[in-house]
Amino acid sequence: MGDPWLSAYDAALRVARKAGAVIRDAGEKEIKVCTKSSTVDLVTKTDERVEKIIIGALREQFPDHCFIGEESVAKGEPCNLTDKPTWIIDPVDGTTNFVHGFPFVAVSIAFAVNKELEFGVVYSCLENKMYRGRNGKGAFCDDEKIEVSDVKDIHKSIIISEHGTDRSCEKVEKIFSTMKKILCIPVHGLRGSGTAATNMCLVACGAVEAFFEIGIHCWDIAAGAVIVKEAGGVLLDVNGGPFDLMSRRMVSANNMVIAERIIKEIEIFPADRDDAPIKKITKFCKK
Amino acid sequence: MGDPWLSAYDAALRVARKAGAVIRDAGEKEIKVCTKSSTVDLVTKTDERVEKIIIGALREQFPDHCFIGEESVAKGEPCNLTDKPTWIIDPVDGTTNFVHGFPFVAVSIAFAVNKELEFGVVYSCLENKMYRGRNGKGAFCDDEKIEVSDVKDIHKSIIISEHGTDRSCEKVEKIFSTMKKILCIPVHGLRGSGTAATNMCLVACGAVEAFFEIGIHCWDIAAGAVIVKEAGGVLLDVNGGPFDLMSRRMVSANNMVIAERIIKEIEIFPADRDDAPIKKITKFCKK
Repeated sequence: MGDPWLSAYDAALRVARKAGAVIRDAGEKEIKVCTKSSTVDLVTKTDERVEKIIIGALREQFPDHCFIGEESVAKGEPCNLTDKPTWIIDPVDGTTNFVHGFPFVAVSIAFAVNKELEFGVVYSCLENKMYRGRNGKGAFCDDEKIEVSDVKDIHKSIIISEHGTDRSCEKVEKIFSTMKKILCIPVHGLRGSGTAATNMCLVACGAVEAFFEIGIHCWDIAAGAVIVKEAGGVLLDVNGGPFDLMSRRMVSANNMVIAERIIKEIEIFPADRDDAPIKKITKFCKK
Repeated sequence: MGDPWLSAYDAALRVARKAGAVIRDAGEKEIKVCTKSSTVDLVTKTDERVEKIIIGALREQFPDHCFIGEESVAKGEPCNLTDKPTWIIDPVDGTTNFVHGFPFVAVSIAFAVNKELEFGVVYSCLENKMYRGRNGKGAFCDDEKIEVSDVKDIHKSIIISEHGTDRSCEKVEKIFSTMKKILCIPVHGLRGSGTAATNMCLVACGAVEAFFEIGIHCWDIAAGAVIVKEAGGVLLDVNGGPFDLMSRRMVSANNMVIAERIIKEIEIFPADRDDAPIKKITKFCKK
């Protein structure tokens, strides 16, 4: 038996690189933003254009496949993972970073069959680093095999999380309370790149020990999830249960020791599932 | 009249690049750390080696100059800025990042005469970006002139700060309280690279609007201060008063509007001055 999804994987790498070049070129010119769910969750024309490029190229080659893309879902398309071959795409992860020229912006493309992730590609386009992982075949950054950190002592760890885009009081309180408790375990430090996809790659290549967040979407983390797993890491729900791609909750870590120690400190707040019957993402564009 | 400090500036650029190459080469091998003021403030052999390389090269060329270096001060040398030509050096800003392979690690070299900063060089050695600024002559990243962001609306800003290395309850409470208030102004986001020198360069090149911190040392920010100022930015004390290099407190921002808005939210906690009569940095090395 051959390698059934090799051509899909090659297509993902090709279109991720192309999309990244479009993002880089757009650069600082494309910062005419419109508001999405709030003033802090920016959507630029580049997001929409890049998603069209990616889905257009993949649909041409794979007309029977399904697509879940951040921008398409924002426009009301369904966000359900079925058994069909399905692409899960974030064209510009780190839109706020992109708008500001902060150096972490990623194209994230994952592919699932029978609800199992087959491969993931994260192209950190301002750094020009191509992270990638295939189920059972390891994880790489460019041509170099990557592995998670072997640190088991939480006191020697760096932990990544994000403040998210929601500024509601309960969530902000819980996010800061969690971060404060983790910092005071103590750990070596807290970081945040501003993109979930890049954060997961930083776990995968051993630069940090763990990344957790509540409120992320499946397109932010699907590709990173394969890369972390193939780099030897673990994925869990924030309550310690099994990782659920659609749950909007995730801990990714170098090992179970670190993951479980972090989970003890996480204060959970509610987040609607990505596959909830009614999508609550509303979009208000000023133009 | 010629350019009295041009040869010093050239020497700074040369030795910063050399030091950065040593840091990169040392890479992941040099992570045998010893504790300094706490388990989270790491010193590696690389720090000490790189400082010796930098000061050795500069002292050979400029035998009459004074030197303030992070590692020298940690060993008990004085940290007083006099009117003499004085180099202010952090060989590895972002030691924790270095130990973990997190991608922001900088060599920071500044030069002051008559207590005024003449130039500053920050070499972000893992990114291979050379930031530099000379009094009255602008700021550059590699060969490109850089300028601060023109954002005046705080709601459209990204603000950088750090949690620092001190885990004492009062400080951590105030740091998190400040960050929470700033996030909820609201701003677009909070970030932290893990190095003050790089944070200041991110202000200088317009990727973020402001960086503030209490507890930083003069060697962390002296070079960045010139670069921010020459990129069109402003430097202030955290109470809104004039910036004092030795005070261990600083706000650097793209303009006064952003700086003053941030300052309203900063909860100040005490930090001993760098030029206090008795240095309180103690060093416990396990080896």
